[in-house]
Amino acid sequence: MKRIGILTSGGDAPGMNAAIRAVTRKAIYEGMEVYGINYGFAGLVAGDIRRLDVADVGDKIQRGGTFLYSARYPEFATVEGQLKGIEQLKKFGIEGLVVIGGDGSYHGAMALTRHGFPAVGIPGTIDNDIPGTDYTIGFDTAINTVLDALDRIRDTATSHVRTFVIEVMGRGAGDIALWAGVAGGADDIIIPEHDFDMEDVAKRIQAGRDRGKKHCLIVLAEGVMGGNEFAEKLAKYGDFHTRVSILGHIVRGGSPSARDRVLASKFGGYAVDLLKENKGGLCIGIENEQIVARDIIDTLENNKHKPDLSLYQLNRELSV
Amino acid sequence: MKRIGILTSGGDAPGMNAAIRAVTRKAIYEGMEVYGINYGFAGLVAGDIRRLDVADVGDKIQRGGTFLYSARYPEFATVEGQLKGIEQLKKFGIEGLVVIGGDGSYHGAMALTRHGFPAVGIPGTIDNDIPGTDYTIGFDTAINTVLDALDRIRDTATSHVRTFVIEVMGRGAGDIALWAGVAGGADDIIIPEHDFDMEDVAKRIQAGRDRGKKHCLIVLAEGVMGGNEFAEKLAKYGDFHTRVSILGHIVRGGSPSARDRVLASKFGGYAVDLLKENKGGLCIGIENEQIVARDIIDTLENNKHKPDLSLYQLNRELSV
Amino acid sequence: MKRIGILTSGGDAPGMNAAIRAVTRKAIYEGMEVYGINYGFAGLVAGDIRRLDVADVGDKIQRGGTFLYSARYPEFATVEGQLKGIEQLKKFGIEGLVVIGGDGSYHGAMALTRHGFPAVGIPGTIDNDIPGTDYTIGFDTAINTVLDALDRIRDTATSHVRTFVIEVMGRGAGDIALWAGVAGGADDIIIPEHDFDMEDVAKRIQAGRDRGKKHCLIVLAEGVMGGNEFAEKLAKYGDFHTRVSILGHIVRGGSPSARDRVLASKFGGYAVDLLKENKGGLCIGIENEQIVARDIIDTLENNKHKPDLSLYQLNRELSV
Amino acid sequence: MKRIGILTSGGDAPGMNAAIRAVTRKAIYEGMEVYGINYGFAGLVAGDIRRLDVADVGDKIQRGGTFLYSARYPEFATVEGQLKGIEQLKKFGIEGLVVIGGDGSYHGAMALTRHGFPAVGIPGTIDNDIPGTDYTIGFDTAINTVLDALDRIRDTATSHVRTFVIEVMGRGAGDIALWAGVAGGADDIIIPEHDFDMEDVAKRIQAGRDRGKKHCLIVLAEGVMGGNEFAEKLAKYGDFHTRVSILGHIVRGGSPSARDRVLASKFGGYAVDLLKENKGGLCIGIENEQIVARDIIDTLENNKHKPDLSLYQLNRELSV
Repeated sequence: MKRIGILTSGGDAPGMNAAIRAVTRKAIYEGMEVYGINYGFAGLVAGDIRRLDVADVGDKIQRGGTFLYSARYPEFATVEGQLKGIEQLKKFGIEGLVVIGGDGSYHGAMALTRHGFPAVGIPGTIDNDIPGTDYTIGFDTAINTVLDALDRIRDTATSHVRTFVIEVMGRGAGDIALWAGVAGGADDIIIPEHDFDMEDVAKRIQAGRDRGKKHCLIVLAEGVMGGNEFAEKLAKYGDFHTRVSILGHIVRGGSPSARDRVLASKFGGYAVDLLKENKGGLCIGIENEQIVARDIIDTLENNKHKPDLSLYQLNRELSV
Repeated sequence: MKRIGILTSGGDAPGMNAAIRAVTRKAIYEGMEVYGINYGFAGLVAGDIRRLDVADVGDKIQRGGTFLYSARYPEFATVEGQLKGIEQLKKFGIEGLVVIGGDGSYHGAMALTRHGFPAVGIPGTIDNDIPGTDYTIGFDTAINTVLDALDRIRDTATSHVRTFVIEVMGRGAGDIALWAGVAGGADDIIIPEHDFDMEDVAKRIQAGRDRGKKHCLIVLAEGVMGGNEFAEKLAKYGDFHTRVSILGHIVRGGSPSARDRVLASKFGGYAVDLLKENKGGLCIGIENEQIVARDIIDTLENNKHKPDLSLYQLNRELSV
Repeated sequence: MKRIGILTSGGDAPGMNAAIRAVTRKAIYEGMEVYGINYGFAGLVAGDIRRLDVADVGDKIQRGGTFLYSARYPEFATVEGQLKGIEQLKKFGIEGLVVIGGDGSYHGAMALTRHGFPAVGIPGTIDNDIPGTDYTIGFDTAINTVLDALDRIRDTATSHVRTFVIEVMGRGAGDIALWAGVAGGADDIIIPEHDFDMEDVAKRIQAGRDRGKKHCLIVLAEGVMGGNEFAEKLAKYGDFHTRVSILGHIVRGGSPSARDRVLASKFGGYAVDLLKENKGGLCIGIENEQIVARDIIDTLENNKHKPDLSLYQLNRELSV
Repeated sequence: MKRIGILTSGGDAPGMNAAIRAVTRKAIYEGMEVYGINYGFAGLVAGDIRRLDVADVGDKIQRGGTFLYSARYPEFATVEGQLKGIEQLKKFGIEGLVVIGGDGSYHGAMALTRHGFPAVGIPGTIDNDIPGTDYTIGFDTAINTVLDALDRIRDTATSHVRTFVIEVMGRGAGDIALWAGVAGGADDIIIPEHDFDMEDVAKRIQAGRDRGKKHCLIVLAEGVMGGNEFAEKLAKYGDFHTRVSILGHIVRGGSPSARDRVLASKFGGYAVDLLKENKGGLCIGIENEQIVARDIIDTLENNKHKPDLSLYQLNRELSV
């Protein structure tokens, strides 16, 4: 393979630029050419494609977001869209494609694979909800951003002896809430993957107050319900001077953490290794500290991401 | 004066601990004793008072919030509450009081002054909305926290070519929105102190898009309206792929900035200078880089905080 | 086991407090008592020991350093010192000990184990140079601190078209240099575990300049040589406008990262699980994402930490 | 005036990009054209000049360093160099020049002024050592960077009961040391503008230890002497477990603080106001919160920057 394309798709995540840089640099190191596709699959179909050189990815590794832009593009779910995309790739002489993104992006890569075009998926999303990998690019940065917010809110919660419900992103997954909650010393973590009982939540808040605890932080995954809804339901069991904080989009941005940049660099390098050997239809991941590649169709159809629920139990024990 | 008290009241602000430390250390340096009062005026009335020593304020300068806690206490608006508070102060032999806080806190200090008890106010609030000073303790940290959020959101806004409405704290004042907006390169800043026209806002967003601008950031002071309400009204003039981010309480916390710690140290030291000379009924401020003290009754009754509106015009010119 | 002790020893590392908190909370959750020993093995021998309660470890998870203090204490290498330590532990009714620290700390734990006193080691050091674990507590924070410095230095290096040699901690290990170097987009990484040729370094700097590269960052592990010495030797091969930055002790401090806090919490919880079952003589680690415990004597005598050298090769390929 | 040039010179400072952006945007707003000159006076003489458009300064406000690069260029001290520079400016039709930088940069601007070419100086340096302004662009960011380092070092100093000498930049001025020292709760601040006695320093360290103080931080301005030299001299008066940290170049970089970006925006806007009215030979500053312009020749020849020495005394009182 002599010429590869790269695009980012779905929600942006810190470290996407580091992955684009790694793919570009590694491919050039291997004697290949790289073309960047703007605006994800929308740009692919539209032919918004340009050559990337070593200098194009200089001074990018530290930047949040994606300099290739991203876009939602439901039209790519149609065979017509997919074939149009492949036509564009061939027009530019591109023989293989690297897709960085989440769930939807992987489905696009799977579709190309089914049409016989070699595509490789790199998991890039803050939500950590992609099968086939322990961690996605952006997750480590996101939990540190949430943690920074928790540390700030703890100041105010302690100063005013308040309860805070902090709603965090994660779509259907509780990973961000779990990790940031344990790291932030949350009193409770509410995630989609584990039942909870509001009366029980209230009892534990009260027990903490009775022991003289000055603050109470509840980290709530958005996949369960909204923060304001949660606070309203909690209020039925007592007045805990509750405030709600919805972290929202600040968690998506920011300069990527060391771990996210290293992970992105490894993933990007490995994607080129695979395409160089004409291996497509794969998604890359890290499993038990090893960089791996799995069949993308099988992974999407037969696997499901699971959070580390031992953290849930651990937090329960440490928040006595 | 040989023994002074100190309390924090109202919303917590980064740098309050640095001010408590400065008052305590300076007073001890001057041969006086210091008593800390927990939970603001509520703790004053309840007699929740304890001696503060040099070591009690060690390792506190860098911490957000207030280690003396704060509380709302509307009961202090009554003469009965005020006299009870003075009784408690006298019980502990306290001859003068330093009150760190915002608007409401100043009214408490004014009441004590009217009853003949020497009180000195130090402006501590993130909102910068206190008369008698150019800057309050906590404002500089708050605008940097908002700025950090703006920089993160810009990553996502650019990656997805979106418009973001970022609602920031400030109560009735637009200072946080103004400063953070100029520093963050906001496309528009909406504050209570300046009219705005929604159609005009929409036109400028569209003009930016037409010029190829990838992101649009609108910083909205909470004193105008909520972020979601603003976005709904904006939507009537076009679809700008708008998202809303409500920064909320994360802006109150965090380790204070260098400037807030220096300001808090100067204010705290000066408060002790005044009380040492038995001067009460004053509020401290910084005006044109000079530390000043003004009559607290006159300041509250006859002055009003005004933001630096030249920033509004400047931002308009720089966001072409 | 009903009563356990805990101490931190050797160089402090971010996350040690999170580990102390986890041990304390988990032990109390399990119905055990916890005693904190100040100043490491020195405090153990001196009997500087006190009960730790739930509240003693509140508001500590986010703090750098160790609130139990640390100290070098070569005297603990003597049998006399060790027996004196065990005597103190028995005096307080302590039946098992958790030691958080690096190399030297582990040797202390091993000595206690040899005398029949159950000790469990938790790897806490920024250097990541402990056998029996993929990661130590503090390493993730340290590489992010170095990364922040690299990002800052890149600003200046680019603005002035300069070469920077950045010396980073790590004692005999190159882990910090490797990870931070890859994450920071270093042009070269010099570590003890891999040969380097100064002429080759110079050639690659010159090649970068010839391609129009504005900055050159060389990350140097202190275990190879000092930054100034390196710069002097490099100068023999050309004038690259070289500056030296020795990051030093700023890398040891700071609020721990999310990952370090989670790791510390897991390690701390597991240490209590082991002691509860009267299992001592073990060192805890994370291997391939699993929390494990190994024989401490065997681990120290027969294992050696190895850095992930694939990062070295990857960086070479990405810094074309 | 219809066309202006802009360059940055001397050491880079955070906020320089914000100033370039402000000059560019404001000038375009006023109907003027802007040309950016790379590499300071060196690029001016060499004619390394290009048109700057609105988009060229987009996404730059948050970046450290200077995207116009900087360089030392002693040759500009010669009349020949100056006339060559003016020749280049005229070749591009440039009628006025904005120079952002420190001491040396101002001398270049003064030279152009003497030759009749309208130049306006904007003070941009972390050192805050420019006459004619209370604050320079970059100073606020720099003191926060130093403060972050002090907070980190305090963790280690406390954990190990050590004394740290922290050498900070500032050339001949003590401003960075003074502000960061007060904000960081330094035990001592050593600056060129105030005498010190090493025996007295040692006595105060010992007094702190006798009172049970766990850490001792001494902030040393590089203009006094180097950190290692200081530690050696201190060692003659006792063993205080002293460590040295030389912060060096990390203090120059990083994303500018809110205050630096606002200041840079105001300065940049005002520079255009002046040039629009054909006013040259001026240097811009902020004095007592007012943006001012003074004669650059008079300012450089008859004024000298003085730090706020009241901070020195305040720190002495608060470090009891």
